[in-house]
Amino acid sequence: MQNMWYVAAYGREIGRTLFSRTVCGESILFWRTEAGSVTAMSDRCVHRRFPLAEQPSHLVGDTVVCGYHGFTYGADGVCVAVPGQTRVPRTARLKTYPVVEQDSFVWVFIGDPALAASTRIPRAPWLDQPGWTVVSGMEPLQARASLLIDNLMDLSHETYLHGGYIGTPEVAETPITTEVDEDAGIVYVSRRMADAACPPFYAKSTGITGRITRWQDIEYTPPCLYVLHSRIAPVGVLPHDDGTDPDAFHVEVVYAITPETDRSTHDFWAVARDFALDDQGVSDFLAESNRTVVLQDVTALNVLEKVIASEPDGYQELSINIDTGGLAARRMIAKLAGR
Amino acid sequence: MQNMWYVAAYGREIGRTLFSRTVCGESILFWRTEAGSVTAMSDRCVHRRFPLAEQPSHLVGDTVVCGYHGFTYGADGVCVAVPGQTRVPRTARLKTYPVVEQDSFVWVFIGDPALAASTRIPRAPWLDQPGWTVVSGMEPLQARASLLIDNLMDLSHETYLHGGYIGTPEVAETPITTEVDEDAGIVYVSRRMADAACPPFYAKSTGITGRITRWQDIEYTPPCLYVLHSRIAPVGVLPHDDGTDPDAFHVEVVYAITPETDRSTHDFWAVARDFALDDQGVSDFLAESNRTVVLQDVTALNVLEKVIASEPDGYQELSINIDTGGLAARRMIAKLAGR
Amino acid sequence: MQNMWYVAAYGREIGRTLFSRTVCGESILFWRTEAGSVTAMSDRCVHRRFPLAEQPSHLVGDTVVCGYHGFTYGADGVCVAVPGQTRVPRTARLKTYPVVEQDSFVWVFIGDPALAASTRIPRAPWLDQPGWTVVSGMEPLQARASLLIDNLMDLSHETYLHGGYIGTPEVAETPITTEVDEDAGIVYVSRRMADAACPPFYAKSTGITGRITRWQDIEYTPPCLYVLHSRIAPVGVLPHDDGTDPDAFHVEVVYAITPETDRSTHDFWAVARDFALDDQGVSDFLAESNRTVVLQDVTALNVLEKVIASEPDGYQELSINIDTGGLAARRMIAKLAGR
Repeated sequence: MQNMWYVAAYGREIGRTLFSRTVCGESILFWRTEAGSVTAMSDRCVHRRFPLAEQPSHLVGDTVVCGYHGFTYGADGVCVAVPGQTRVPRTARLKTYPVVEQDSFVWVFIGDPALAASTRIPRAPWLDQPGWTVVSGMEPLQARASLLIDNLMDLSHETYLHGGYIGTPEVAETPITTEVDEDAGIVYVSRRMADAACPPFYAKSTGITGRITRWQDIEYTPPCLYVLHSRIAPVGVLPHDDGTDPDAFHVEVVYAITPETDRSTHDFWAVARDFALDDQGVSDFLAESNRTVVLQDVTALNVLEKVIASEPDGYQELSINIDTGGLAARRMIAKLAGR
Repeated sequence: MQNMWYVAAYGREIGRTLFSRTVCGESILFWRTEAGSVTAMSDRCVHRRFPLAEQPSHLVGDTVVCGYHGFTYGADGVCVAVPGQTRVPRTARLKTYPVVEQDSFVWVFIGDPALAASTRIPRAPWLDQPGWTVVSGMEPLQARASLLIDNLMDLSHETYLHGGYIGTPEVAETPITTEVDEDAGIVYVSRRMADAACPPFYAKSTGITGRITRWQDIEYTPPCLYVLHSRIAPVGVLPHDDGTDPDAFHVEVVYAITPETDRSTHDFWAVARDFALDDQGVSDFLAESNRTVVLQDVTALNVLEKVIASEPDGYQELSINIDTGGLAARRMIAKLAGR
Repeated sequence: MQNMWYVAAYGREIGRTLFSRTVCGESILFWRTEAGSVTAMSDRCVHRRFPLAEQPSHLVGDTVVCGYHGFTYGADGVCVAVPGQTRVPRTARLKTYPVVEQDSFVWVFIGDPALAASTRIPRAPWLDQPGWTVVSGMEPLQARASLLIDNLMDLSHETYLHGGYIGTPEVAETPITTEVDEDAGIVYVSRRMADAACPPFYAKSTGITGRITRWQDIEYTPPCLYVLHSRIAPVGVLPHDDGTDPDAFHVEVVYAITPETDRSTHDFWAVARDFALDDQGVSDFLAESNRTVVLQDVTALNVLEKVIASEPDGYQELSINIDTGGLAARRMIAKLAGR
C-alpha cells in the first residue's frame, strides 16, 4: 500500500554505519548525520546501481561514498563528486524519503512525498516515555503482512498456538466486540475476561498468584501500527470511577507490521509495562517470553505462506465470529489501498 | 492422473501421530483411530488453512485439534468444535479421501470419490503373506514419476548404473519381449537369461555359487504398481511341468510409484523372498543392497530431472528395442489420463 | 551471442576424465583422446539425455560409455554401440563443437559450425610463450557477462573496490581515451598516469619503491577476450625510440569472459609478466593478490545481479566520461549480436 508511513527500524539500529532495509519492495539506505539526524535515501547508486550499504561503500563525514566507483552523495541525496571529472551531472541524485523518528521507531513514507506531511503517523508513546519500561525486538517473517495482521487481530489463537505462555482456555472461549472508526481509520477489538486463569507470561511478571480479570483491547491503525492494551488485575479489581487504575497492571504490546516484499514482513514487537520498572529480571523474562511467542507465530505464519504459495488462487476460507476484527481490518486496508 | 488409487504410505507409518503426505499435489492428513482404522482427509484447516499435521496440532481421542485456533474435526472430517461460539458452521468439514489398507500399503483414491469403489486396486500379496519375508522402504525422488517408470521398465540399465549390485553384462545383452493387456491395463516385459553370471545381490542371498538361469518378468499396472517377478536358479533348473518350482529362488520386487508433485515422486520399494525366511542376515543384506540400488536410481533421476527442467521443450529422444516396455507404459498412461 | 568462439576451459583442465562445462546455455562434454586431442560434444546421451560427464559414465579408450544404459560414442560423437541389439541407429550421434586449443585455453565455437573456420579466435600469446611467466584461474560468477564487461572496461573502480591491492587515487582521477576499431572488432581504452603511487600489487612484485609511471591499455575483442596491457616503470622512464622498453615491467592481464547462462559467467583470469620469471614467491604473491581482486569483483557483481534481477525493467543508469569504454563495448556487442 502506497502513500503510508511505515516503521523501517528502531532508532537504535541507525548510527554511523550504513544500514539498509527494504520497505514495500524499496531498498532504502539509512544513516545518521554527525549532528544525529536520520537520513533515508535510495540504496542504489545512480551510476551502476551498486547498493550503497554494501561494503566497501562507507561514510565520510556527512557523505556516502559508493564502494564501486566512488560516486559521493550528501545527506540530501545529491551527488557531490564523481570519478575522473570535476563536473557532477545535474541529474545525479538519490531519491530521498520523508523520515521521522518517533516513539523509538524510524518511520519512512512510501509513496508520493508530497502527501507525507498530511498523512498521520500513528503513535505508540509508551515506547519512549517516563513511567514505562520497554523490551522490544524485530523478527523477519517469510510471510505476507496480511497473515500477521490476521494473526494479531484474532487472539483466540493464543489458547492453541501459545498455550503455556500467554494462552489460557478463557481467551478462545470469550466472545469479542469489534468496532470500526472509519474516520479515524482504526479497528478496535475488545475481549474482556472477568475471571480467567493467569498465564505464566503475566503471573511471573506481576506476581499475581490467583485468577485474574484480563482485558485485551486491540487498537489497530492500518496498515502498520497495532497496539494491544492489556490490563491484568486480581479478579474483581476494576478501574476507579475517575478513570485512574492504580491496582491493575498495564502492558502495552505494540507491533509494527512492515511489508518487506509481497511475501515477507518485518515483524517489530515491543512490550511496555507500567510496573516493576527497574526490575531487570522482569525485563529479561518478558523479553525472552515475548520473543518466544513471536517466534511461535513466525513459525506458523511461515508455514502458512508456503501453503498459500503452493495452492491455486480462489481458495475459500471459512470465517466465524472470532474473525470479525480481522475481516474489518481487511476491509479497511482494501479501502485505503483504493484511495 | 486423476481417478486412480495411489500408495500414500506403508501401514506402519500411520499411527496415533498426525502424519501428512502429498499425493498428486494434494496434501493429505493420515491418522489411525483408537479402533485402528486409517483415516485420510485434507491437511488444511477450513478456517485459515493451517496444516493439521503441523505442531501444535494434535489428536484428542478420535478428533484432530488444529494448532492455530482449535478447530476440531472427527474421523469423518466433520468439524465438531470451533473457538468462541457453540454453533459450528454446517459447511465446516474437511475433504476426505477413500482409503484402503492392503498388502502392507495405505492406498488413497485421488479424484472423484464416487469412482473409487469401481476402480481396481492392484495387488502385491507377497508383501503381507505367510511364506514370504519382506524388506522395504521409501525414498523421496526429486524427479517426475515418468522418469522412474522409464527406469524400471528398462532393466538393461542394471548393467551400467547398478554394476556390482544387480547388473551383469547379460542383462543388457539379452533381448526382451513386451506384451500389453489393454483390458487388464497391464504392461508385461520379460527378459529370460538361460546362462548368466550371478550378481552379488543374489549370490549372497541365495548361496548359489555358479552361473544362473535368471528370469525378470515385469508386470506393471499403471500408474502406481510395478512388480518384478524375479526367478533365480542354477543353470538348467526349470519349473516342473505341474507349475511348481521348488528348486528356484523367487523374489518379488515391488515398487509403488506415487507422484508427490509434477516434479517429485514417492519411490516405495519392497523386496519379498520365498527363501531364507528367518535369516536376519539375508534380510539385512537385501535391505541394504536394494536401498543402495534405489539410491543409485534416485541420484541419476534427480540429475535427469534437472536436465529436463533446464532444457527447452520438444527435445527429441532416441528409442531402441529395450524401450518397448517403457513406450508401451507411456501409451497406456496417456490413454488412462485421457479417459 | 551465437556464432562466436568462447573459452571453455584451460587446456590443463581437460584430460582423461570426463569434464563438463556449460557455455552459452549448452552443456558440453570435454575429454582428451589417447593421442592428446581435445574433443567437444554434447553432454547429453541421445537415448534418455543422461549427462555423459556424470558418474558412472566413463571413458573406455577413445569412447565414452553412458552410465545409464551403456550407449557408447566415439571421439567424433558417433554412437558405436547400444544395449540389447547389434544395429546402431543411424541418427545416434552427439552434436560436436569446433574446438581449438590455443594460448593455454580450450576454445569452442557456439553457433553454426560452418562459420567456425571463418571466425577469428582472438589471441593471448603471452599465456603460452617463452619469456613470460603466468598465474591463472577461473572463478564462477553468478552474474550476467555484461556486468563483468562493464567492470573491466572501467578501471576507475580499482580505486574504490580494490583499494589496497591495485587501486590508488590516480586511477580514478586520470581521464581515459577510448578508441573503437569497427573493422577489427576491438575496443581500446587507455589510461596513462605519468606520476602515480605504486599499489602493493606492483610494488611487491617489481621491487619498485617510489612513485611510478603507470599505463593501462585495454584491448577488448568482444565478446570473450579482454587484455589489459599494463606497463609499470619508475617515474619518467619511457620506452626507447626504437620501441624497446627494457627498463619497464610489463604485465598482460587477460580475462576470458564466457557466459554460462543468461545470468552466470565463467570468469577466467590470467596474469603474465616479463620479469622475475623464475621467482616462485612473486608467482605466489601475484596469484593470491589477483585472485583476491577477482573475488572482490565477483562479490560485487553477484550483488549487482541480484539487484538487477529484483528490479523492474527500464531502470535508467547514469553514465559519465569513465563509461565511454564500457558503452562502446555494449554497442559493438549489440552490433555483433544482430549480424
